[in-house]
Amino acid sequence: MFRLFWADDGGLPANDRGLAYGDGLFETIRMVEQKGVLLSRHLERMVRDAGRLGIEVSRRDLANVCVQAAQRFAGRFRGEGWILKLTLTRGSGGRGYRPAPGMEPNLLVSASPLPPMPDIAGEAVDFSKVPLSVNPVLAGIKSLNRIEQVLAAAELGPSLFEVIMADHGGNLVEGTRTNLLLRQSDGWVTPPASSLAVAGVLRQWVLERLRQQGERVSERPVAVDDVLGPDCHGLFLLNSVLGFVPVRTIAGHDLPVDGGLATIFNPLETLE
Amino acid sequence: MFRLFWADDGGLPANDRGLAYGDGLFETIRMVEQKGVLLSRHLERMVRDAGRLGIEVSRRDLANVCVQAAQRFAGRFRGEGWILKLTLTRGSGGRGYRPAPGMEPNLLVSASPLPPMPDIAGEAVDFSKVPLSVNPVLAGIKSLNRIEQVLAAAELGPSLFEVIMADHGGNLVEGTRTNLLLRQSDGWVTPPASSLAVAGVLRQWVLERLRQQGERVSERPVAVDDVLGPDCHGLFLLNSVLGFVPVRTIAGHDLPVDGGLATIFNPLETLE
Repeated sequence: MFRLFWADDGGLPANDRGLAYGDGLFETIRMVEQKGVLLSRHLERMVRDAGRLGIEVSRRDLANVCVQAAQRFAGRFRGEGWILKLTLTRGSGGRGYRPAPGMEPNLLVSASPLPPMPDIAGEAVDFSKVPLSVNPVLAGIKSLNRIEQVLAAAELGPSLFEVIMADHGGNLVEGTRTNLLLRQSDGWVTPPASSLAVAGVLRQWVLERLRQQGERVSERPVAVDDVLGPDCHGLFLLNSVLGFVPVRTIAGHDLPVDGGLATIFNPLETLE
Repeated sequence: MFRLFWADDGGLPANDRGLAYGDGLFETIRMVEQKGVLLSRHLERMVRDAGRLGIEVSRRDLANVCVQAAQRFAGRFRGEGWILKLTLTRGSGGRGYRPAPGMEPNLLVSASPLPPMPDIAGEAVDFSKVPLSVNPVLAGIKSLNRIEQVLAAAELGPSLFEVIMADHGGNLVEGTRTNLLLRQSDGWVTPPASSLAVAGVLRQWVLERLRQQGERVSERPVAVDDVLGPDCHGLFLLNSVLGFVPVRTIAGHDLPVDGGLATIFNPLETLE
């Protein structure tokens, strides 16, 4: 189990390891009234990736908290929905970096308004100056170690929706808060999960849906030339809150905008 | 300036970015009554590295807090001393990863007992199974993004004092909480600051002292063979709280133990 904290009742204990070392992980779930987009996948990812960090939590306990959170918060928001955030940390204390055996995790639950939704006609993005370092033992985990994304997000501005971060070899990996999906003439391409800082739940869902429909999907490194070259038939940013965001320009280069993805798939179908 | 929080009065706000993203940094200072070991260097590092993250703080404001903290906490500890911890975060809120302009940082101040001191006859260490990823924009910064160190520290046990982490090229970089200093026949060797996750204040102090004494010091990559080979005349772990820790065995291999460093230099001289 875990100790449960509601953000509107106060914060976590001062010696929480999430604060001390970023020793934990989080999920940000788009809610419509009392139901969540891709809710099962969010909970499954948190349970699985907590396990990779050695933090034990059960899906059932998390699901129960989501029900309580929906009852507590849904009435405070109107219209398009709201955001439910779950922050799970290893717990309080321990000697320095070393976790004490059998620590009880802390779970902080908070709610916030939906952010502004992207322009379905396409958004402008740029390449980030901040490189992305992905440690294989942490690849894909939406952990609380996110300074690289914070520094890259400081490059955003009113006319810049996202910046794309590259690894030390120069391959494009992901945006600060989005995964990449590229349309080429022979199918769809996305960087492999093992290379990602955060493996998004919308990414996994749409790859499965595309394959179910017989589309060809490759998980392989994406070079700058793949995006700027003539075989790029559309670049999408994927985020479970924001949906499918077509990229209209990247670093000032126009890209073909293909609304197809958003017209084929609607993540709001997955409300549960 | 910053908002000041005392850990013994409660934690940080629930929307603090240190918790959300590890968006901040910390210092851990060995105190003897009301004075600190290498205190100036700790404060200078925090100011400089906060600046690298875009968090503004003044040395004078931090120094004032240390005086208040010493008065508040010193009477609660006896004997060898105590630990003063400063945790500085970018502040509360912002939209997602993107910091709001002009955010006021939060500073959390806490005190704890001194940990057990190492055996000056030498300690046993091992190689960590967790690789270390150092992003050049974060190199050396004692940030709150420390999951790699947490996972490596989980490998420690009652008979294992430290594990040494290597980069993806296999070079030895540092321990979970210590920097490395190797004695070879032609002088001292330590991995370069640009390769480090955390550039320790004791490391910098001892490199300067060695050079002042005319000793030869090289900052260059350290391979496993440098440590296990015949030209290793001693390996030291450096930590401003623990001092100079001679390594007696590494992964079961005996190393020559040279107490020289601890007999030449005494960080307690630097109390201020």
